[in-house]
Amino acid sequence: LIVVEGPGAPEGFAEGVARRLGADLVKPVYKIFPDGESYVRLPGRLEGTVVVVQSMYPQQDKRLVEALLLAEASYGAGASRVILVAPYMAYARQDKRFLEGEPISIKAVLKALGAAGYDALVTIDIHKPESLAYFPGRALDATAVPQLAEAVRGSIGEGEDIVVIAPDRGAVRRAERMASILRAQHDYLEKHRDRYTGEVTYRPKSIDVQGKTVVIVDDMVSTGGTMARAASMLLSLGARRVIAACTHGLFLGDALEKLRKAGIEEIYSANTVPVPEGVKPVDASPAAVEALRELL
Amino acid sequence: LIVVEGPGAPEGFAEGVARRLGADLVKPVYKIFPDGESYVRLPGRLEGTVVVVQSMYPQQDKRLVEALLLAEASYGAGASRVILVAPYMAYARQDKRFLEGEPISIKAVLKALGAAGYDALVTIDIHKPESLAYFPGRALDATAVPQLAEAVRGSIGEGEDIVVIAPDRGAVRRAERMASILRAQHDYLEKHRDRYTGEVTYRPKSIDVQGKTVVIVDDMVSTGGTMARAASMLLSLGARRVIAACTHGLFLGDALEKLRKAGIEEIYSANTVPVPEGVKPVDASPAAVEALRELL
Repeated sequence: LIVVEGPGAPEGFAEGVARRLGADLVKPVYKIFPDGESYVRLPGRLEGTVVVVQSMYPQQDKRLVEALLLAEASYGAGASRVILVAPYMAYARQDKRFLEGEPISIKAVLKALGAAGYDALVTIDIHKPESLAYFPGRALDATAVPQLAEAVRGSIGEGEDIVVIAPDRGAVRRAERMASILRAQHDYLEKHRDRYTGEVTYRPKSIDVQGKTVVIVDDMVSTGGTMARAASMLLSLGARRVIAACTHGLFLGDALEKLRKAGIEEIYSANTVPVPEGVKPVDASPAAVEALRELL
Repeated sequence: LIVVEGPGAPEGFAEGVARRLGADLVKPVYKIFPDGESYVRLPGRLEGTVVVVQSMYPQQDKRLVEALLLAEASYGAGASRVILVAPYMAYARQDKRFLEGEPISIKAVLKALGAAGYDALVTIDIHKPESLAYFPGRALDATAVPQLAEAVRGSIGEGEDIVVIAPDRGAVRRAERMASILRAQHDYLEKHRDRYTGEVTYRPKSIDVQGKTVVIVDDMVSTGGTMARAASMLLSLGARRVIAACTHGLFLGDALEKLRKAGIEEIYSANTVPVPEGVKPVDASPAAVEALRELL
């Protein structure tokens, strides 16, 4: 078993996968030609099953093309089977035709990866796991929530009363999972519009957060708007302090500043994408390895 | 018949195709999300055959992914058949495993385009037409040499004695084709190494260029090194003046300066990629249309 560290693999991720699987870690040569085209080269012959680790942020398009090239190179070098571990899958949010004339982008991307020869795929906390049906082979969605939960546990003092909150109904399953690990209650925020003033607020559906430590969990933080708003609302409802945890922390633009201004004390993000300074990185490679074991 | 102008279509190219085929021209909405992902949207329903025009330079990876998205969007909008016109095909130069461990990049790219649903493909002066066998549907390599020849003819004075030279043996077919249109002789440059001094020169294999106007023709100019060297050599052998003509003029870095310093008077490039100032653009859409007619 060989693990190939793609140029888009988050730092330490491929190493973590190889170590846990007892596999050899191989680092391809990687460069960009003066015209902008990517070049990859594997060091010599490969045999048996190859696991390519390649995340797809930033530079989603380049990372995707490199993933195509790495599959072709792996078979060319002698691999009998190539599996892709894409901790962050690009284009996963365009998972249906919201408007006529749009593509289902994730469908096009997953079909291209299948055509490149990947016969199985592992990703982590993809926006909608149902999207993986577009991939022609076996595709598993692992979750980094257990790793995030263990990391968050380290920030919780003894006897501290915690609740886990999803910023919207779509993320409630993740909140539930994290809450069960932390032996805490969970809930999600519901939108309320004041009948008289028209003012919009967000409140936990049923839980009282007064005096509690709130862990807000979501699959992705991009501009940080949703997470910041959730934090402000929960603090205004009397939460003692707010911790944020997400799998894919893109933190676009001034997202981190926004989150701190909203009063979030600590921010955890899995290492599916590069984790910026000021955010606590959580190694998600155990989640990928667990899924890989099902495929090997 | 509908022609879709992809975000990578060279200026005027899709229009030229639509006009010549009597087809409707459709311009998709195009944007880049803050995280760097591309978004395309076709304006409403499509029917029948759709021709997507999308060139793949610069930003080859982004252009390739957009091509995948446009195929998916076209079928989603009702197209029964989608054909790709890629005047410049990215990754065409990595068309074999030059070294062990390398990918055949063009194979990975053409398979991805096939998987996206393109059922036929037209490209122009691809590096090695044999590469097109990797595409799962019909794929035609059109040539812009006739258009280049007609453009060059406009620069030739009455009674001016011209020869067409390929800078290496690989380009001799193109030189032959252009020469036959211009009713001129053709040849290619051969490398010579002086047995005593070791000095390397390049000379036409059999033609004497003394006093003649030389048209150097090649499929691609990237850094301009090959073309500049050919021009210098031919002028030192007594050529009266040198004109350069190529299909894909990338002109990377200081390529244009290099070509002018080498004494090239005029430079023609087809519009398969954006044509910079100082280079005479040649419309290659008639070449694509001729190939398309075979597929429709």
